[in-house]
Amino acid sequence: MSYLKNAWTMAAWDEEVKPGALLARTLLDQKLVFFRDAQGVAHALDDRCPHRFVPLSAGRVCDDGQAIQCAYHGLRFDGSGACTHNPHGNGKVPAAARVRSWPLVERHSILWIWMGDPALAEAARIPDFSALDPAHWHVGKGYLHARANYVLETDNILDLSHIEFLHPGTLGSDAVKHAHTELRQEGQTVWSMRQTENEVMPDFLYQAMGLPPGLRVDRWIDVRWDAPASMLLDAGATPTGRPRSEGRQNFLPHLFTPETATTTHYWFGIAFPKAMGEQGAALARQQTAALRVPFETEDLPMLELQQRALGDTPFWDHHPVLLASDAAAVRARRLLDQLIAAEQGGRAA
Amino acid sequence: MSYLKNAWTMAAWDEEVKPGALLARTLLDQKLVFFRDAQGVAHALDDRCPHRFVPLSAGRVCDDGQAIQCAYHGLRFDGSGACTHNPHGNGKVPAAARVRSWPLVERHSILWIWMGDPALAEAARIPDFSALDPAHWHVGKGYLHARANYVLETDNILDLSHIEFLHPGTLGSDAVKHAHTELRQEGQTVWSMRQTENEVMPDFLYQAMGLPPGLRVDRWIDVRWDAPASMLLDAGATPTGRPRSEGRQNFLPHLFTPETATTTHYWFGIAFPKAMGEQGAALARQQTAALRVPFETEDLPMLELQQRALGDTPFWDHHPVLLASDAAAVRARRLLDQLIAAEQGGRAA
Amino acid sequence: MSYLKNAWTMAAWDEEVKPGALLARTLLDQKLVFFRDAQGVAHALDDRCPHRFVPLSAGRVCDDGQAIQCAYHGLRFDGSGACTHNPHGNGKVPAAARVRSWPLVERHSILWIWMGDPALAEAARIPDFSALDPAHWHVGKGYLHARANYVLETDNILDLSHIEFLHPGTLGSDAVKHAHTELRQEGQTVWSMRQTENEVMPDFLYQAMGLPPGLRVDRWIDVRWDAPASMLLDAGATPTGRPRSEGRQNFLPHLFTPETATTTHYWFGIAFPKAMGEQGAALARQQTAALRVPFETEDLPMLELQQRALGDTPFWDHHPVLLASDAAAVRARRLLDQLIAAEQGGRAA
Repeated sequence: MSYLKNAWTMAAWDEEVKPGALLARTLLDQKLVFFRDAQGVAHALDDRCPHRFVPLSAGRVCDDGQAIQCAYHGLRFDGSGACTHNPHGNGKVPAAARVRSWPLVERHSILWIWMGDPALAEAARIPDFSALDPAHWHVGKGYLHARANYVLETDNILDLSHIEFLHPGTLGSDAVKHAHTELRQEGQTVWSMRQTENEVMPDFLYQAMGLPPGLRVDRWIDVRWDAPASMLLDAGATPTGRPRSEGRQNFLPHLFTPETATTTHYWFGIAFPKAMGEQGAALARQQTAALRVPFETEDLPMLELQQRALGDTPFWDHHPVLLASDAAAVRARRLLDQLIAAEQGGRAA
Repeated sequence: MSYLKNAWTMAAWDEEVKPGALLARTLLDQKLVFFRDAQGVAHALDDRCPHRFVPLSAGRVCDDGQAIQCAYHGLRFDGSGACTHNPHGNGKVPAAARVRSWPLVERHSILWIWMGDPALAEAARIPDFSALDPAHWHVGKGYLHARANYVLETDNILDLSHIEFLHPGTLGSDAVKHAHTELRQEGQTVWSMRQTENEVMPDFLYQAMGLPPGLRVDRWIDVRWDAPASMLLDAGATPTGRPRSEGRQNFLPHLFTPETATTTHYWFGIAFPKAMGEQGAALARQQTAALRVPFETEDLPMLELQQRALGDTPFWDHHPVLLASDAAAVRARRLLDQLIAAEQGGRAA
Repeated sequence: MSYLKNAWTMAAWDEEVKPGALLARTLLDQKLVFFRDAQGVAHALDDRCPHRFVPLSAGRVCDDGQAIQCAYHGLRFDGSGACTHNPHGNGKVPAAARVRSWPLVERHSILWIWMGDPALAEAARIPDFSALDPAHWHVGKGYLHARANYVLETDNILDLSHIEFLHPGTLGSDAVKHAHTELRQEGQTVWSMRQTENEVMPDFLYQAMGLPPGLRVDRWIDVRWDAPASMLLDAGATPTGRPRSEGRQNFLPHLFTPETATTTHYWFGIAFPKAMGEQGAALARQQTAALRVPFETEDLPMLELQQRALGDTPFWDHHPVLLASDAAAVRARRLLDQLIAAEQGGRAA
């Protein structure tokens, strides 16, 4: 499997890396260990002691958060990957006793990692997820582990026509099939937009949005995609014929990072304005929990069936029949393929 | 694994494919979905939507039984494999949107499938299982899934000498070892026949046959084999010295179809004459349930041990020591090997 | 995986092979079946019937312990591997109907097997485990199955510095880190010796040794290694400054035999003098049970993590950082590699 390496991709929610604890997680086939140092700065190291190769994540944070200690023979490493302590023999640290440290940036509730050439890791290239800025938003934070390739996940979110068939009782409404759709590309960002007009929504959506039940609305779901698989949904509804600014709007992140070629980390959620106070926090929690149900019980099984059907054969080699609804997903796939090919050709993407 | 393709093989009991429901089953490494249309005719399609490759068996029967609908994006296909509905875009059905349909014939309680060249699929080539004709017989219908190659199953039934060692408490009797055995071949059909004389049978056999306990009998078990692995047992007993027509006789089907090279679908049962009325139906059910016990708890574990011992190495490459009791099984293996070789050489078997 | 074949290695504790029972065990990737004949002599045969390849261990001991019978079609084999009975046809035994028998010697509570050229299998080459002679010792006998390569187990025992980090609450003491260590080689035997002086041991060690709590002692743990992985620990403590003969001493066997390249049979225990009577027998049982806890819950998980990290890549290809504490383990690894290379070069080791 070829991955896009020179790109920021989500490694974890900020809160997944807790002070004093180690988080083991594999990204792009690379086993990593995450920890926060005494200053609260999160670090990502290769999860493998260079002495006897056991996972450092089996060990513990030590030295007041300045290092982590291997559980087997006690070597210690700091956030830069340097060995800071060898308890054996004369205590001299062998030159080879170090582990790789990866660029990691905490921004807008997300820990972003750069799995490529560190010289190219400019934080300015992180996609804009200020819609999850904890200073202004209560962010509901969900996580699922999918046994499917991450691009299948991208396909799924960029073609929401599946809602009618896969989520009829949870996320769907008859109007979804009548949505006007539009594909747009700006630089290396792809937008897939759905617009319905004068719709009566399912009851739960009025409740979720805080709109009067039965009100006829114009509804939109605009999906933004950045390589490799970082997506933000701008979803809302406004009384029929009124501008979006008079309606209700939510931002829903869907970010995917490959664990392996056939398994994916899936972070999702929903943000409510901090101005709503405790009610906004509660809504963020409740709706993230509610979204988890169809994502886990309807999308994941379908994506896993799809992955099993594809096996080890590359997607395009299966010669999929393409439908009108595939336009955005195909655009993103082609763009991702180009970025990976460019990177492997020796040029930075 | 090379399979015999141009041959009818069992796909299911008739009753396994129910109106309004989908049955997913893999045969010869091919994932298939079965359904009955509004006219009650059973169909077999490739279990894979050509759009996003998820199994059609995850969907549902629709259009009053005339089609099945994919669970992911709603494409519909009829029994011929043609796409009858595309809910996306302008609704036009892409030319490539079709799935393969396989010849399927329902006869004598069995759904027979032809996994080779459809032009050669003549129903006249279906082996004679009129002994299971539901017009004249109550047919007890059992099914087991075996983690062993299907030819090991053939070997097992064609060499019933194993009953003495593997089934001493259930199917065996001291007389089995003294049986006279005979091997016969008629065209591409192999017969393995066992005959005992003046035998006192185990109690349960008198009960099963409706004969007076302790009566001395001549007993026979004649096994008929047709490629790839369709077998019918003609089993019975008659008072010592009397013709078979004066005794009791049952037909017991044992049909095997490879799921994969190392797993097998195993259908078995026993038929009682319809003239016996409800008692015959009850006996068919009870004795099929009783037979299931040794088949599942004694034969299957032994065959799975054998499969594990063989691994991926072809059977003959293990250089088995051959015993007198292997004659029929070896004959059937050689014949099957010839049929497969002839088919792969470009000539229909 | 290349194994050392021309060497005695542990196959089982004497008591694991019981009269009238069959023991199935894989050693060096070879499936074996063990049984005791009527004279109490243990035998090791290939666990595979040459007729239909099912494991002989699925069968039973027969003929008053003189043979074992295959469960499928009843062939019988004696301890030499010869077929003694064919119940089929005219009963003649085909010349090819035999299984391989392996040299097996029972000595000092252990069944030793020779998996190489039988002409070289001299019992004089069995390492000295007279410290487990049941005539003089009560031997506590433990067994664990490890999902790790056997040489990782050797490494673990030859570098007891891990006790401080992996077993702080069970086997460790602050003094372990201050131990004086010494590496010695005598012929093809490697010794790794640890000596602490004037130590206050953890409470449980005083209890285990029968010494007054808090007594200052000089403590030793001397580990003896013979290829492929047979180790004997000589462990004891004596009042500070006194000769070893005035202290307490125990012998603890740690023997490993590869099951496969990534799984290992692990036999361990502790011996107490028979002169102690029933109390010695009880101590052997109790302390073996107590040792099992850290071995199973601390060592095994760490070794399995290590094995998973190594995967299929040979150990040295991972370029381990070597520490002072690795000296003995590295010496034994190098010696083992040389023995295997010599054997594969055509010369007996």
